[in-house]
Amino acid sequence: MICLGIDPGTATVGYGVVEEANDGSLHTVAYGVISTLPTTPMPQRLMTIFEGVSALVEQYKPDRAAVEEMFFAKNVTTAITVAQGRGVILAALAASKLPISEYKPNEIKQSIAGYGGAKKPQMQEMVRLLLGLDAIPRPDDAADALAIAITDLHNSRYDTMLD
Amino acid sequence: MICLGIDPGTATVGYGVVEEANDGSLHTVAYGVISTLPTTPMPQRLMTIFEGVSALVEQYKPDRAAVEEMFFAKNVTTAITVAQGRGVILAALAASKLPISEYKPNEIKQSIAGYGGAKKPQMQEMVRLLLGLDAIPRPDDAADALAIAITDLHNSRYDTMLD
Repeated sequence: MICLGIDPGTATVGYGVVEEANDGSLHTVAYGVISTLPTTPMPQRLMTIFEGVSALVEQYKPDRAAVEEMFFAKNVTTAITVAQGRGVILAALAASKLPISEYKPNEIKQSIAGYGGAKKPQMQEMVRLLLGLDAIPRPDDAADALAIAITDLHNSRYDTMLD
Repeated sequence: MICLGIDPGTATVGYGVVEEANDGSLHTVAYGVISTLPTTPMPQRLMTIFEGVSALVEQYKPDRAAVEEMFFAKNVTTAITVAQGRGVILAALAASKLPISEYKPNEIKQSIAGYGGAKKPQMQEMVRLLLGLDAIPRPDDAADALAIAITDLHNSRYDTMLD
């Protein structure tokens, strides 16, 4: 079972591809970011994100996708910008017909660190341990995306156990 | 010169296609809405909008596109939802390589009714008159999209005069 986790944005979209083996162990397949320049017009930036997400699906052939839900940003302008990117990401994933799950930040923290109020360094260290990596994955957006993918794999495992 | 105007949203995306003849007169080519159901998962709704906008470009072959800018909504949840739809619309237009302009609500009102604080019935009647239509175009989202297209054609005419 392979999950593509995505941390939405417009300047930087984090992604993490994680595979769960039959014994339940987790393996990092890939992680990184799709970047767009603030000097590029927004429509082109959004198209780059659409194409980038489509290319990740093409390359890694995930079985599932997971995207972080939007928090209620204090800054409405930032919220609108991130939401535009998030819309494009969801559309690109829907085009690939993948099952898509959405998780709130505190659900991801709960799943990874066992505590909805976990801080970023603690989350990053847990991602490193869960994936058996030597170092914390960089940049932060990629580590966040890996956390989202792990959360989704945990969740789908639980769904399967309930069946 | 043909402009595709779009009034963003997720449940209802208004569109209006307006042609400016060489004598400066405006003609309605098409108008309507792309609708998605609230019961459909958001990623599929966003993909429907992406495909719908792409199909409009394919069918009407506009020279330009224009999209209303987001106002600072009081309701952040609504703003996020509309922004997700708007992001998808911009990405679909960027994929078509059209020049894309964005207009604030008061710019559209100024251009159509000569007054940035114009009310909706006044705007709709002006759209009807400018396009020489017998009745006000329905639904409202389609009339709004026609207003956006007219604003863009006015604006591009002015740009040309400045050249």
